[in-house]
Amino acid sequence: MLVQGKPQHTIWMADEDSHCVRIIDQRALPHHFVVEHLYSIDDAARAIKDMHVRGAPLIGATAAWGLYLAVLQAQQQGNYSYAQLRQQANTLKDVRPTAINLHWAIERVMNAMKNTDSDPLAITRHEAETIVAEDIEICRRIGTHGLPLIEAIARRKKGAPVNILTHCNAGWLATVDWGTATSPIYHAHQQGIEVHVWVGETRPRNQGASLTAWELAEQGIAHTIIVDNAGGHLMQKGEVDLIIVGTDRTARNGDVANKIGTYLKALAARDSELPFYVALPSPSIDWDISDGCKQIPIEERAAEEVTHIAGHTAEAELTAVRLTPAASQAANPGFDVTPARLITGLITERGICEASEAGLRGLFPEMTHV
Amino acid sequence: MLVQGKPQHTIWMADEDSHCVRIIDQRALPHHFVVEHLYSIDDAARAIKDMHVRGAPLIGATAAWGLYLAVLQAQQQGNYSYAQLRQQANTLKDVRPTAINLHWAIERVMNAMKNTDSDPLAITRHEAETIVAEDIEICRRIGTHGLPLIEAIARRKKGAPVNILTHCNAGWLATVDWGTATSPIYHAHQQGIEVHVWVGETRPRNQGASLTAWELAEQGIAHTIIVDNAGGHLMQKGEVDLIIVGTDRTARNGDVANKIGTYLKALAARDSELPFYVALPSPSIDWDISDGCKQIPIEERAAEEVTHIAGHTAEAELTAVRLTPAASQAANPGFDVTPARLITGLITERGICEASEAGLRGLFPEMTHV
Repeated sequence: MLVQGKPQHTIWMADEDSHCVRIIDQRALPHHFVVEHLYSIDDAARAIKDMHVRGAPLIGATAAWGLYLAVLQAQQQGNYSYAQLRQQANTLKDVRPTAINLHWAIERVMNAMKNTDSDPLAITRHEAETIVAEDIEICRRIGTHGLPLIEAIARRKKGAPVNILTHCNAGWLATVDWGTATSPIYHAHQQGIEVHVWVGETRPRNQGASLTAWELAEQGIAHTIIVDNAGGHLMQKGEVDLIIVGTDRTARNGDVANKIGTYLKALAARDSELPFYVALPSPSIDWDISDGCKQIPIEERAAEEVTHIAGHTAEAELTAVRLTPAASQAANPGFDVTPARLITGLITERGICEASEAGLRGLFPEMTHV
Repeated sequence: MLVQGKPQHTIWMADEDSHCVRIIDQRALPHHFVVEHLYSIDDAARAIKDMHVRGAPLIGATAAWGLYLAVLQAQQQGNYSYAQLRQQANTLKDVRPTAINLHWAIERVMNAMKNTDSDPLAITRHEAETIVAEDIEICRRIGTHGLPLIEAIARRKKGAPVNILTHCNAGWLATVDWGTATSPIYHAHQQGIEVHVWVGETRPRNQGASLTAWELAEQGIAHTIIVDNAGGHLMQKGEVDLIIVGTDRTARNGDVANKIGTYLKALAARDSELPFYVALPSPSIDWDISDGCKQIPIEERAAEEVTHIAGHTAEAELTAVRLTPAASQAANPGFDVTPARLITGLITERGICEASEAGLRGLFPEMTHV
């Protein structure tokens, strides 16, 4: 997608330098555009844990590149071993518990490394590059499959802007390109359909206000930031035509774990009889989980994310301020699970299906091992 | 209620000085406790408009005292007239459109001023003092009527803490004493019942995180601040026993206008089959409105409340920071309307009733003019 008018990915290796992987340090957005160089698996782990990168697909891609950097470093020190890499991979898997893509990407790379005589560096690089390329293609297809939903509303509204509400950032910053929830929106925009996006700020980390709003602005798409509390009211008042969100992990029964607050938007959509879709790259499906509401682990994050917030002062300095009384504690569950019964449909790279085991199996019949 | 262990009201006239009315400038909370002196109706209007004071009952009390200050100033300048006061009253009524108590308190004072030969200063002072005294009594009674709800849960949980979720500040800072939604909680605490309050931060102005948390901490009541997004998840997980919120205006059909985001909590409560109560002082009832969802006007507030936030820096300075991209706009509806069908009951000063016209008329049979 575009940054200051130029095409950009969220993670890449520069042609001239295969000793590091580059990412956007998303913590500085929307105020500054900062490119960060990762030189080791520890750098990658820190980037994931401290949310320099976030979003299930991008976390997966970063983990895959992290294994490449682990091999690179071990080879440079002359002490590469599969056993050690396995250990590093296991540690990396635990850095964030909710996003399933992290596990998926790591196991995919590690499987490719098993029982092979090829150069481990070449294998990890190939797998990371493939994961990245596939992610771009998955997101592109989510866009083409979701586009008709927006086209139908545009026809019904006779060209009046289609109002789409989204939560958190399931944009290209959460993936490598296109995004998941945003991909149908970007495709609609490219088709000349007038869209307007309601961007929920997404407390506590404000990924909506700082990331989704920024990337929409960079693509020139009309949007309005709202507090998360306002979503239901706008739906009641007929100001929303369609809700599309992303997911960090979807159980095979169609229950969707996504950023905390998603469940409330789904409830409001049902109450106003509005379509509520989840954009779902298949690596986000956890086929081992039969009941998402009961079984998906929810990450409890640091209280400081609630009690403090960072922003730009009038002097353009990035400063953190405390919002709460010193005597008060805070809790910070990072995700919630939206039951499948509240979801109109799942937009996958293979098409749209019902949020149910039957729906998912219809699109992914090869998943016969569970 | 207590501030640093000493009893405190939110608005008062000091014995030694009848030339001003004192309020707490709530914008400085939770970081600083600032007492502000109001000398004129313009001071009172600014305090209401810029939210030095907020909360429907306290807005009403401040408006009543504002009319006293208007008479005081006019008499000092030797140019008091009822016609001029009527004009000032009309201007003051428009300062905030959603809170019905503002209209109610102003009309109550103005009615007392009509067709009388008494000293207007004495009348306005008497009315303001009566409104304040009645508010304290109303809030106390809401507490005693709401208390059995908490007692019943405490019995069922055999002494384990009763988890109550509230939104915004319907605490004593929103009234003169006790609060509305908090009054049953304070009464339960005084009875020795163990309560724990989930305090939704209440974006955009964070009245939960800055006011409710502060006043609970000052009374020594266990509480945990959460982002507004987390309320539904906690209800799903069985971490909430009861929801109590306040109201800015309730239509006679039981629809409740309250701080933006209340509706989402009500939806989540219904989905988890949890009791959702609204604490309702009768001056907040708008008997003229038969359909709250359609007819209650919703105040659109400044975008800056969404794009910027103020807090304490590490150096204990109160600083505002910008949270959003400079290129993005924001919308800021201040309230939403929760339909009566989602409300378990209304806790009034006369008891608890169903959220319906029949329920309200049963408790207030004297309201025969509508």
